[in-house]
Amino acid sequence: MPFLKNCWYLAAWGEEIPAGGMMARQIAGEHVLFIRDDDGNVAAVSETCPHRFAPLGMGSCSHGVVTCPYHGIRFDMAGKCVENPHGPISSALKLKSFSTAERHSAIWLWLGDENPDENMIPNYDFIDRTAPDARVKGYLHSRADYRLMVDNIMDLTHADYLHATSLGGGINTRAKAQAERDNDKIKITWTAMNDQLAPLHAQILGSDLGDFYNQVIWEAPGNMVQRILLSRPGQLETAGMDSLTCHVMTPETEASTHYFFCHTSDAVSAHPEIAPGVRAGLVAAFADEDAPMLAAQTRRIAGADFWSLKPALLPSDKGAVLARRELDALLAKEGAMA
Amino acid sequence: MPFLKNCWYLAAWGEEIPAGGMMARQIAGEHVLFIRDDDGNVAAVSETCPHRFAPLGMGSCSHGVVTCPYHGIRFDMAGKCVENPHGPISSALKLKSFSTAERHSAIWLWLGDENPDENMIPNYDFIDRTAPDARVKGYLHSRADYRLMVDNIMDLTHADYLHATSLGGGINTRAKAQAERDNDKIKITWTAMNDQLAPLHAQILGSDLGDFYNQVIWEAPGNMVQRILLSRPGQLETAGMDSLTCHVMTPETEASTHYFFCHTSDAVSAHPEIAPGVRAGLVAAFADEDAPMLAAQTRRIAGADFWSLKPALLPSDKGAVLARRELDALLAKEGAMA
Amino acid sequence: MPFLKNCWYLAAWGEEIPAGGMMARQIAGEHVLFIRDDDGNVAAVSETCPHRFAPLGMGSCSHGVVTCPYHGIRFDMAGKCVENPHGPISSALKLKSFSTAERHSAIWLWLGDENPDENMIPNYDFIDRTAPDARVKGYLHSRADYRLMVDNIMDLTHADYLHATSLGGGINTRAKAQAERDNDKIKITWTAMNDQLAPLHAQILGSDLGDFYNQVIWEAPGNMVQRILLSRPGQLETAGMDSLTCHVMTPETEASTHYFFCHTSDAVSAHPEIAPGVRAGLVAAFADEDAPMLAAQTRRIAGADFWSLKPALLPSDKGAVLARRELDALLAKEGAMA
Repeated sequence: MPFLKNCWYLAAWGEEIPAGGMMARQIAGEHVLFIRDDDGNVAAVSETCPHRFAPLGMGSCSHGVVTCPYHGIRFDMAGKCVENPHGPISSALKLKSFSTAERHSAIWLWLGDENPDENMIPNYDFIDRTAPDARVKGYLHSRADYRLMVDNIMDLTHADYLHATSLGGGINTRAKAQAERDNDKIKITWTAMNDQLAPLHAQILGSDLGDFYNQVIWEAPGNMVQRILLSRPGQLETAGMDSLTCHVMTPETEASTHYFFCHTSDAVSAHPEIAPGVRAGLVAAFADEDAPMLAAQTRRIAGADFWSLKPALLPSDKGAVLARRELDALLAKEGAMA
Repeated sequence: MPFLKNCWYLAAWGEEIPAGGMMARQIAGEHVLFIRDDDGNVAAVSETCPHRFAPLGMGSCSHGVVTCPYHGIRFDMAGKCVENPHGPISSALKLKSFSTAERHSAIWLWLGDENPDENMIPNYDFIDRTAPDARVKGYLHSRADYRLMVDNIMDLTHADYLHATSLGGGINTRAKAQAERDNDKIKITWTAMNDQLAPLHAQILGSDLGDFYNQVIWEAPGNMVQRILLSRPGQLETAGMDSLTCHVMTPETEASTHYFFCHTSDAVSAHPEIAPGVRAGLVAAFADEDAPMLAAQTRRIAGADFWSLKPALLPSDKGAVLARRELDALLAKEGAMA
Repeated sequence: MPFLKNCWYLAAWGEEIPAGGMMARQIAGEHVLFIRDDDGNVAAVSETCPHRFAPLGMGSCSHGVVTCPYHGIRFDMAGKCVENPHGPISSALKLKSFSTAERHSAIWLWLGDENPDENMIPNYDFIDRTAPDARVKGYLHSRADYRLMVDNIMDLTHADYLHATSLGGGINTRAKAQAERDNDKIKITWTAMNDQLAPLHAQILGSDLGDFYNQVIWEAPGNMVQRILLSRPGQLETAGMDSLTCHVMTPETEASTHYFFCHTSDAVSAHPEIAPGVRAGLVAAFADEDAPMLAAQTRRIAGADFWSLKPALLPSDKGAVLARRELDALLAKEGAMA
């Protein structure tokens, strides 16, 4: 399975890489080292020393310079060797360098050969507009194919069954769904009026009945942003709850994924003290309910091509299928260029 | 390695599948879900949901209807979709269905394309004739190739070495052995008269010397039934112990096996209170002595073709070799038809 | 990856195989059983029973005769079957036999088809000349490619970084290095005069400054002997410390290695009571510092051909590279003959 190269991968939350520090993470099969200098600038280079293939993440980092733990060769943030204790700095002594951007409190990584275009970074400025203590952020690791993790968010009817006692109960399935292409994005919207809300939403609102609007917008390879509006019947435009959450699925390997989320809402912004509880709820839903299912699907598929297994397609899959087809088209385009 | 398809696999003991319940088990590489309705009827279907490949065994079952845990699609015992909460029931929304039969207190599974013939089910009616509390039954899982597990029973001389202090000591090796074909069955019989009995048998009989008759009859793919007669010298026809045990080796994967056994004897029928102790002894002999050896052999063979390794053949292998050749011939026949 | 066959592998320290006992160990992919008779003679045979591929190491051994745990077939030290309880001893009932030699308190194994030449056994008679209680010997298992473990010793500049607080600090890198071929051996020598000694050496000598001579001689496939001379400035010829250490890297599989070492020095010979402490220090340096690095490199290389990864070559690699090239040439020669 090839990974998309000419795209931005959300590789880390900004705070995962301390000033003057570094962090190693495998992204789309590539071992990458993220380095932040004392001024806060971030860069990404290959994490494998070209001399004897030592993982540089086992080494040390100071003022933006990484020292290989094995023989002390030092590289700067551009991947240039700045010190070879054992002789001249040959042309082979360099690390592959990758473009990065820090935006929306996240580090974005470009693995491709084309010139990176920062306009292609997903617009998650809702994060920037939210006070840091009201951002419910997280990182979770999953033993699942990232495309199954995209499917999972693009078809939220699963919440009715997998999260029946919190986010489910039936309203997601009953809701009117509309999936559509918006240029290179895929948008799916569910609406339900004067309906029985999900248990957690009913509790938040203090009302069993309500109006519900849920929209997810996907862009390649695994970036999704979700807006939920919630109100007592008839008040969707004027009152109730408004939340925005990004769900980003960054492949680590063919069968494992980095899952980044950031949830914001007017409720948490008004009462940042509830943020830890909301975060615990989101983590539990994923870790206890989604993660075992997604890992089980990944094992059952066992590396086979998804389409070769002839999955039964449902109307509720429309968003997920449009996203998979868009991704397949982008991969085919890169394959044709290669 | 292909598995035989047009044959009956013992897939479970009947009591493993509760009324109104279900059980998932991989049989000969196939993920199968066994369902029992409220009337006690059992059926078998593919355990993989055709929508997103969720394992249905992670779901729930009620009145013979299975609900996928992921999106709530429901299937009946014939594999027919009876409810799709997300739209019409398309032709793709069905589970592959397998023939089953419940006989001799076991669930038998047919994976092949040919019409199943219930006359091909091994005749283990000794189980039916035995009171339930006198049936010493068990299920054990093993990390071994099922054909090595067949070899193990078809050549009981191993007991003299691997189970030296219980079922061994030399009598199995000293016994006169005769292996022969009986239509599509392979029969091997050991007899020893007025000989030093195995430690456990000497203890049961209260006599070091005795007469010993031990017969195993194999039929494809891994079904064996064993009769042991035991007496003080000269009394084999008139007195002593008579036991019947089936040993069934059902492949799970190429390197793991479901082992089902049911031991009966006049001694246990007369004193069912000894059944738990007899069962503990059989389980210990397998788990502590056979299982580590069979798993070690499987790792050492490491997926190679058995015959390509040119095993040294002994006269005591005759039954095992006849059984392997019969199985190879049946597999070749299926391969030629495919 | 093929292993060199026509060479001597250090397979065990002599004391690992008790008189009248046996030991199983995988050497260069081959499962080998080492047997010692009551007179102390050692032999090596295939550890796999030719009957049903049972690992003979799970069996028993007495007076140089091994009994298979599964069916009691017995083999002598030449691999000849000396007892088959189940019938005649056919020509297939034999174990492949390997040449061995016991020398320098180690068991050497020859896996090749050519006639073994004991003159090819590395000359480690410094072990014989050292009193047993002054030999700092050890065996360590490593999840690393043995060739990376050879590189590690052939380029001791790594000590300055990986063992900075004990054997490093900079002197190994500052030292003048000379690598050269000596027939089929590769010799690398580091010398530093009146220089800042490594922390451990400074402590031993009671002087921060000193003279340092460090020589490693390699011969195929993974045999190395190291001599270190150490003195206060200007006294290298007349006073100070003199040590000899062999480091032998014997492949187990493509990604795991048996590491044998024996360290001797005039200091330990004079005070054998310090041997346990010296041994603990050597084990800790390897287990805590080298082993994690070597295993990480092996995982990162992931089975790829080393040269295909185009490693950056440094002047300090000269010894390691000469050794790899010599090994590659020997392997090519064996491949051409095969």
